Amino acid sequence: MISFRSKNVPPSPIRRLIPYAEEAKRRGIKVYHLNIGQPDIPTPEAFWEGIRKYKEKVLSYGPSDGLRECKKAVREYYNKIGIEIMEEEIFITTGGSEGILFIFFILGEVGDEFLIPEPCYANYISLGRMAQINLVPIETKVEEGFHLPEKKEIEKLITKKTKAIIICSPNNPTGTVYSREEINRIVELGIKYNLFLILDEVYREFLFDGREWVNIFTTSFPMDRIIIIDSLSKRFSACGARIGFIVTKNKQILSQLMVLGMARLCPPTIGQMGAIESFKKMDEFMGEMIEEYERRRNIVYEELKKIKKITTYLPEGAFYTIAKLPVEDAEEFIKWLLTSFHLNGRTVMVAPLDGFYLSQNKGKNEIRIAYVLEEERLKEAMLILRKGLEEYGRITQ
Amino acid sequence: MISFRSKNVPPSPIRRLIPYAEEAKRRGIKVYHLNIGQPDIPTPEAFWEGIRKYKEKVLSYGPSDGLRECKKAVREYYNKIGIEIMEEEIFITTGGSEGILFIFFILGEVGDEFLIPEPCYANYISLGRMAQINLVPIETKVEEGFHLPEKKEIEKLITKKTKAIIICSPNNPTGTVYSREEINRIVELGIKYNLFLILDEVYREFLFDGREWVNIFTTSFPMDRIIIIDSLSKRFSACGARIGFIVTKNKQILSQLMVLGMARLCPPTIGQMGAIESFKKMDEFMGEMIEEYERRRNIVYEELKKIKKITTYLPEGAFYTIAKLPVEDAEEFIKWLLTSFHLNGRTVMVAPLDGFYLSQNKGKNEIRIAYVLEEERLKEAMLILRKGLEEYGRITQ
Repeated sequence: MISFRSKNVPPSPIRRLIPYAEEAKRRGIKVYHLNIGQPDIPTPEAFWEGIRKYKEKVLSYGPSDGLRECKKAVREYYNKIGIEIMEEEIFITTGGSEGILFIFFILGEVGDEFLIPEPCYANYISLGRMAQINLVPIETKVEEGFHLPEKKEIEKLITKKTKAIIICSPNNPTGTVYSREEINRIVELGIKYNLFLILDEVYREFLFDGREWVNIFTTSFPMDRIIIIDSLSKRFSACGARIGFIVTKNKQILSQLMVLGMARLCPPTIGQMGAIESFKKMDEFMGEMIEEYERRRNIVYEELKKIKKITTYLPEGAFYTIAKLPVEDAEEFIKWLLTSFHLNGRTVMVAPLDGFYLSQNKGKNEIRIAYVLEEERLKEAMLILRKGLEEYGRITQ
Repeated sequence: MISFRSKNVPPSPIRRLIPYAEEAKRRGIKVYHLNIGQPDIPTPEAFWEGIRKYKEKVLSYGPSDGLRECKKAVREYYNKIGIEIMEEEIFITTGGSEGILFIFFILGEVGDEFLIPEPCYANYISLGRMAQINLVPIETKVEEGFHLPEKKEIEKLITKKTKAIIICSPNNPTGTVYSREEINRIVELGIKYNLFLILDEVYREFLFDGREWVNIFTTSFPMDRIIIIDSLSKRFSACGARIGFIVTKNKQILSQLMVLGMARLCPPTIGQMGAIESFKKMDEFMGEMIEEYERRRNIVYEELKKIKKITTYLPEGAFYTIAKLPVEDAEEFIKWLLTSFHLNGRTVMVAPLDGFYLSQNKGKNEIRIAYVLEEERLKEAMLILRKGLEEYGRITQ
């Protein structure tokens, strides 16, 4: 009854264990959620101001490519960071996820190949299955901080069906920021094989230790083969607004985006109103927010180092890190944390990493930690994780 | 470069002529928009109240199937109209259009067939192409007020690949309301051939001349093969909120909706807040709104009757009607209205109907009129249409 292609879409590894967390809460246990990239940072006041500014009597359909004022705000932000684009080169989407789905569909026939470093953001896998394209993993490893392999290793993966390389930097789920030299490997391969580059930069500003953002338009990659997936969910701590955008100079893609966009009418109007004001005032709140995340990153790293037999690394951006645990099956451990463990009535939820891998049987003993809680809570959550691992080690030996 | 399947998606007939309207506006011409189902009725105060009630500090991701409170509001509304459903039988979507796409994808393998009366809502065609399912037209005619053909005519269209019949009543784009007897034809065929029934009832309350709504759950159609597509866009005049919902008792479909829903994270949070309050207070504003649309329906019908050599009918619901015009190519006529005609500096935009047909070369001389303007403006718009047709008739003879 259910189509095979639909059954082929995997449930989110970030969300599928939520019923266990809900059950724990019903038993009166407090659950620290480090499983989902839902920041606790307040949505900036500018966002709410923007919403309040909407004084129309009718909450009407907007243009399929987004409100003109919203596109203007995106353009000004992009110009400020050194990317010269025009408003017609911006397409507002219903969250970054819609942007990914549209681009897969526009560029890929059924079965076409898109390279992506794995582990990768799990929704690439589910949206890729929906679009029936083939994601081909570029192997990266926890021991190397998930940095890219040598160019020749990536080159081996390119076939006649390869359409694009997807690069998410700063990376979800790894927190890795690719260096200019790494980006150049991709640029050279993209040019050599005439590929598209899909650049997911929703964490663009989330850079630690003074790292620099690599503006892809300062490389030699052909401008009309660059597609940027962006979103204000993380930047403005406004995940529930469902506003993202695609930036590209490719006119054919833009015109096709408009056709697909018409079929779903328009992105949400009110969220765009919030975006307009937030972009204008982002300098006022972004710096402080990134500093906060860097402090949290330090806490998570320090706390993880205290755990025996764990493999981890210093994440360079975004607000995620990955740890390889001394357990056989991380998912079983996470379930156990939620069903059979607590520390003073509290426990912690993280995401099992296997759902972020395209390859079978990878990441079975790895977890993603999203450090989206303020420092004191984060410390406690990490303590719970450590104590939980010790206890789990004792009972499973 | 662009995939064939993407190129196969047609641009919206409702939106694709907008550049001509914008050009007219730049020349100082006022354009009455009867092309798009964007009501001028104010969004109810309850909707804005709901938004103002959102006091969270963080605009966070909601559940993939919608906020619990929003599902509760939908359940209470459905219970009130006599459909017994539970909250877990409701899935909140990002507009009705997302619901259509998800259901096509969940039920249909590539190439599977879905029957639908034509002309049909144009976005079914584009979303069907995106999902790569095959929409098979059930022929209906302006001369018959677009009512359904005999059962045996529909039965001829059913093959081994037929998965479902799609019924939109009150209908967009025709304004036709199918009688209980017509619905029974579909019910009997659905049972005989074990099909799903996809019921699009976003205009459920928009019934004129005291017509009754047929509750599908009072027929003998198997409950677990009914899928209702619904939306608050028209009911609450809140098209820009992008909130729709699917109602079904089929557990497999519900669980699959959750998987696809996770891949796009969640529907917009703020729109759901507006929905919650609006559902609670809908009795306060719905009656008046429907009366307003019925008055407008009467105006459009009376005005159309004044036009020579036109074929039309009395629409029974929604806020659309169709007219067959004494022109060869309605699209050329619409462009002409926007580029070369005005009455005291004003002109009118309607939608060419060919884009609402699946069959080639149908509807070439038909238009859809959305009566979404208040009475005086509507009268003027209809006068412009009449004068335009007279003038166009003279110059094209």
